[in-house]
Order: sequence, then structure tokens, then C-alpha cells
Amino acid sequence: MTNTKPSLSIVKIGGNIVDNQPALESFLNDFNKLEGKKLLVHGGGVMASKMAQQLGIENRMINGRRVTDSETLKIVAMVYAGWINKNITAYLQKIGCNAIGLSGTDANCIPSVRRSPEPIDFGYVGDPNPEKVNSEFISKLIESSITPVFCAITHDENGSLLNTNADTVAYSLATALSKIYNTSLYYCFEKVGVLKDIDNPESLISTMSYDECENYKEQGVIADGMIPKMDNSFKAIDNGVSEVIILHAKNLLTKKGTILK
Amino acid sequence: MTNTKPSLSIVKIGGNIVDNQPALESFLNDFNKLEGKKLLVHGGGVMASKMAQQLGIENRMINGRRVTDSETLKIVAMVYAGWINKNITAYLQKIGCNAIGLSGTDANCIPSVRRSPEPIDFGYVGDPNPEKVNSEFISKLIESSITPVFCAITHDENGSLLNTNADTVAYSLATALSKIYNTSLYYCFEKVGVLKDIDNPESLISTMSYDECENYKEQGVIADGMIPKMDNSFKAIDNGVSEVIILHAKNLLTKKGTILK
Repeated sequence: MTNTKPSLSIVKIGGNIVDNQPALESFLNDFNKLEGKKLLVHGGGVMASKMAQQLGIENRMINGRRVTDSETLKIVAMVYAGWINKNITAYLQKIGCNAIGLSGTDANCIPSVRRSPEPIDFGYVGDPNPEKVNSEFISKLIESSITPVFCAITHDENGSLLNTNADTVAYSLATALSKIYNTSLYYCFEKVGVLKDIDNPESLISTMSYDECENYKEQGVIADGMIPKMDNSFKAIDNGVSEVIILHAKNLLTKKGTILK
Repeated sequence: MTNTKPSLSIVKIGGNIVDNQPALESFLNDFNKLEGKKLLVHGGGVMASKMAQQLGIENRMINGRRVTDSETLKIVAMVYAGWINKNITAYLQKIGCNAIGLSGTDANCIPSVRRSPEPIDFGYVGDPNPEKVNSEFISKLIESSITPVFCAITHDENGSLLNTNADTVAYSLATALSKIYNTSLYYCFEKVGVLKDIDNPESLISTMSYDECENYKEQGVIADGMIPKMDNSFKAIDNGVSEVIILHAKNLLTKKGTILK
């Protein structure tokens, strides 16, 4: 049987580009030119950290994840769902892309489970359940030529917002929407892809299988923050995502980066 | 010809109730019980003023309207579209109301025009154009049993967010949606309605016509911040809104207040 599912591009951008207005606008211009149905997920950690500092609230990070007490939850909800999300949406509207800014609580799009306080208590931090993503509503938007723009705020279905890793939000949406679409997941970051030598952009690994990735981890080529990104990516492929590409935001249209398969 | 339009309740709550969590939750429980199709608009000026103070930014008000420079725009977008809007949505989800939090830039719901800097330069402040409200999209949500929750942030369709009076947002939505629905507009505030004697809650004026309102204005019974609220209300009736009720948030279900006709 031929696969007749339509294609969908899910693009994730991180906090560095969001904090740089010219780079962000250049990226959004490219995103607007990306053909076909699409969806954007954005981070914003850099701006949240700055806002916390301005308010005299300490930024506590463990393993690169933000410890989120009630004051910090307020900051991330304000910065991600308020300032960044609405500015991206307004810019996309300006350039002719009919965007809608959403968090995971809106139309119950992304119900999450608050993390156990053991072994590390991250506070108001949640992990989405891809099984419960409201893919029916999201696909209705997409089929009406509306482009969803998700921030990394979800909810516990019990009245509390939850701070959520943006890579994980993108992974969860891609996995859930793979039942309806042939999904391609683009993780944009500040390098041109996965590099054999982190200081040499010429050392790009253009394709990588799961086994190759495991070897690179053993060799220490893939380390630190790249490990959860790669794990999320291969989990996405295991769960029906057609392809995952790790690339620099500036290369979105050429799609040059590391293709995982 | 019989009027066969379905009914829609548009409810506006102000910054005082939004800043009081028990009162807000009690109101949202009532809102959830309100029968039929509905839509919520919320303010948040009290919390925005507190956040500005925390950040050391001066609150500048002229005629009760906030002067909105770029730093203030960031604050109101964060507080209204981020913190308040997503918390209300999360609470409504908790109690079984499938809410979606929106600003005027999302799906281009409420395009606005930035106010002229003459005679007073309010900065990034806009007034919606009811003709351009995306009532088709909003009604699609309502017909899918999704309850829109609007904050008072709109956009100029040229990339800029605009701070907008929440009463005016409610008026604009009610007017635009009157083409599709029999709309009732509820302005909730901290009094039980329009009072003949502001210090005597027993002096409630239960119904009021336009001519009566003009008389009350001349007598000084209606003054200050009530004047734009009344003007918006009668403008709404002129533009097809079926009824406007000015009432205390706690009386939403009994609908006891001042009915304008």
C-alpha cells in the first residue's frame, strides 16, 4: 500500500536565535519560505535567564535543565508564552504567514506529567505524553492553512502550567502528528550539524544511523547536551517520524546538516 | 423573518479580579457553568503595574490609560498574554472547559490601528477595527466547543504588538461576532452595576436607555472611567449586540446588574 499521508515539517529553534532579533527575523523569513505544511516550536531560555536576573531571582540549572519554582514558572510563562511567542506570531503575520501562538494548555494541545521530585526535584517541570497530544485540533489548524507556533509551556491538566524542554515538545508533537502526516523534524541549533571535531565546522557528519550514534557517544564525539538531543531524535524515528535533521538555523532551506536515519 | 442566529455570551473581567486568585477561581467556576456558547476577555492592569514596579519601570497613566513604551509593551505582553492568559486557560481546562488562550495577533484575530501620537502619545497602544476581526476563525473554534480566552494584546499587522483596552477588545469581538450570533456582552467589574449613589449598592439602576445614560452623565452620576465603558456599551448595541449587562463578577449566573438597551 502506498503511503498517502501528507508531509509536515516541524522546526525547533532554540533560545540563542530567539534572543537575537536580526537572526530571528532572518530565520522566520526562511521558515515562511519553507514549502508545505509546517509547525514551529521555540525555546527562550536565554531571555528567561535575563528576566530572572532583572527580577533578582536566581537561575538554578541542573544538567542543563532549569529548576522551576513558582516564581521561575511565572517568568518562563511570561517570557515564552507572552513575549517571545506573540512576537514571533506578529512577525510571521507581518510577512504573510497566518501563524497562531500556542502553549500546551491551549485547547489541551500538550498534556504533560510533572516530573517526580526524585532523584532531582526540578519543580514545575513536565514531560509531555505524546499519546495525549491533541493532534486532531492541531491538524485542523494546519489543514486550515494556519501555522501553529508552540512555546515550551505545557500543563498538568490539573490547573498548573509546567516548564517543558523545547526539544521534547518538538519530539512529542512530531511523534503524535506522525499518525496523520509524514513528519520531518528539524532541530536548529548553533552548529552546522553534528561535528566529528567540535571546533571544525568542516567535520560535519552528514548522515548517522543509531549504531553510528552509539559509537560516537563511546568515542566522546557526542557528549553533554548533544546526548539528550540525539536520544530524542532516534526515539522520534522509532516512533514514526520520517526523518530528523540537525542543522544550523541559517541552513533551513538548503536542509544541509546531519540527517539521522 | 425569525432570527435564527445562535446565542453567544461574551464576558469581560478586569484586572482587580484577575489579581485575586480565590475570586478569579470562583468567577471561572461560574463562567464554566454559564450555559451555551461563550468567550472570555480579561484585563490585567493591576498585575502589569506590579511587574513594572518590580522591574523598576515607571507606570505612566493618562486618563486611566497606560502609556506604553517598548519596555512597557514587553511587560504587558508578558503579563497579559503569558502569565494571566495561560493560567486562566489552565484553570478552565482543569474544570472541564476546553479553553484556548489567544491574543489579537494569533490567527490574525484582532488587527488594530496604532493610535495617533496626537493629541496624546500613548506609544504602543492600538484600537481594534471590528470590521477586520477574524470572526470566521473565532466562530469555528466556538462551533468546535472550544472556548476562546482573549487577552488585551492586539497587533498592527506590521510586526508590532499593541496594548489595547480590554473593554474595547470585548466590544470589538461582540460587534464583529454579532453578524453570526445573538451576542450578549457582560462587563464584569467591582460594583453591582451602575449606581445612582456610588457609595450605596442598593441604588442600582437596573435598566438604562441611551437617553437615560446621557441624563445621568449630565447629572454626574456617570463620570470618570464609567464614561468610556458606557459609550462602548451603547456603541455595541448600535452595532448589533443584543444586550449589554454591567454587573459584579460574582453575579454572572444571576445576571443581576444594569441592563442597557
